[in-house]
Amino acid sequence: MVFDRVETQPAYQLVASMIEKRIMEGTFKPGQQLPSELDLAKQLGVNRSTVREAIRVLEQNGLVFRKSARRLVISVPRQSELASRMSRAMVLHEITFQELWETMLTLETRAAELAALRATEEDVALLDANLAATRECLEHEERLVKLDIEFHLTVARAARNRALLLAREPIGLLFYPAFYKVMSRLNAKDRLLAAHTEIVTGIRGRDPKHTALWMEKHIKDFRRGYELANLDINQPVDASPYGG
Amino acid sequence: MVFDRVETQPAYQLVASMIEKRIMEGTFKPGQQLPSELDLAKQLGVNRSTVREAIRVLEQNGLVFRKSARRLVISVPRQSELASRMSRAMVLHEITFQELWETMLTLETRAAELAALRATEEDVALLDANLAATRECLEHEERLVKLDIEFHLTVARAARNRALLLAREPIGLLFYPAFYKVMSRLNAKDRLLAAHTEIVTGIRGRDPKHTALWMEKHIKDFRRGYELANLDINQPVDASPYGG
Repeated sequence: MVFDRVETQPAYQLVASMIEKRIMEGTFKPGQQLPSELDLAKQLGVNRSTVREAIRVLEQNGLVFRKSARRLVISVPRQSELASRMSRAMVLHEITFQELWETMLTLETRAAELAALRATEEDVALLDANLAATRECLEHEERLVKLDIEFHLTVARAARNRALLLAREPIGLLFYPAFYKVMSRLNAKDRLLAAHTEIVTGIRGRDPKHTALWMEKHIKDFRRGYELANLDINQPVDASPYGG
Repeated sequence: MVFDRVETQPAYQLVASMIEKRIMEGTFKPGQQLPSELDLAKQLGVNRSTVREAIRVLEQNGLVFRKSARRLVISVPRQSELASRMSRAMVLHEITFQELWETMLTLETRAAELAALRATEEDVALLDANLAATRECLEHEERLVKLDIEFHLTVARAARNRALLLAREPIGLLFYPAFYKVMSRLNAKDRLLAAHTEIVTGIRGRDPKHTALWMEKHIKDFRRGYELANLDINQPVDASPYGG
């Protein structure tokens, strides 16, 4: 054998990578219009259909947004899109509740601590509104789960750290729905409301220790509930809404 | 106005979503061959070219892998691919060093603690080899950064938590290269070696507190170094290799 097999990359992927590189370097900036298909094809010396396929890839990756049939604009990938992609991968990798729980304990506790240092009056108002709605919904499990997810997201946003937010969102998408199984089997609602109330008290009082402590207790309650409900924490989580 | 504008989704995206749903539900399992283009086109009642475009989308998303021109196999999205996608998004969102640092402090400290509880003899051997190589490379900055990245990844893997690993990787991809700027300006190398040595001692001795404490000190050193080098922690990190 003299030659290794040549590894070819389809032309459209090469073109997509080249455009992406320009976006990452800041030559093409978010909000700017992408040059036309014809222009790009001429500059790059490829067929127009190759450019069209490359643009489709960039659209899929959230780097290009189609405003109208002919107007393509550079965009920034949406956090929600990235998060759902990541949580789908976690399901396919058969990640267990135990793994999610450990990671969530870490991230939510830190988010709570930082939220106590940085929350604005607006954040506190959102948390108060969430608490009030939670009190009203204690008997509506589905609404309660939605409010719980919203509560934790509001705390995380108040931490003013987008890296933390990006890290926790895909885990939260799988973790909180898994908790629905617990909530529907146990009377965990009063404990949930009590913990949320203490967390908001901590944030309002600018007390990072109190806030972090109650978030930690609260996430530890999730695990205890999971075990009390005879669910196996070493089983992979599933992707169906509210844990199936 | 009587009608809202109809929001249409291109047919290939609809087809891609339908196939993805089957993969997520487990009807199509990783490793299995995807039905042929022709088969799918018949079943779904669309053109073959629509199916072809849908498959391209799935390939891009790492859910389908092309073994040969005609053999397409269901696959699981690669962690490295997801991580680089996420870190590209962080750059475009102009995430700051401060945000990355706070998140890394949280994740690496927990990873260190769990590694001390769960590391195998093989993990410890990898860490020992990394330490030995680091001692040899103290004057080669580029190799030192690579070894540093490898060290932290080895610790994180020893924590045996894939959710934690998925959460830290995109942040690590941006965080450690940013530290290169510090390392090349300051004499931080001895402190780095000392911290790594203590972390390995803690893991070998199954001492989660010692390990977590030294990881925390080590990550705090990164930030101090960044500030001592007169770098602004509130500036966005960039995406060029080794922080440009």
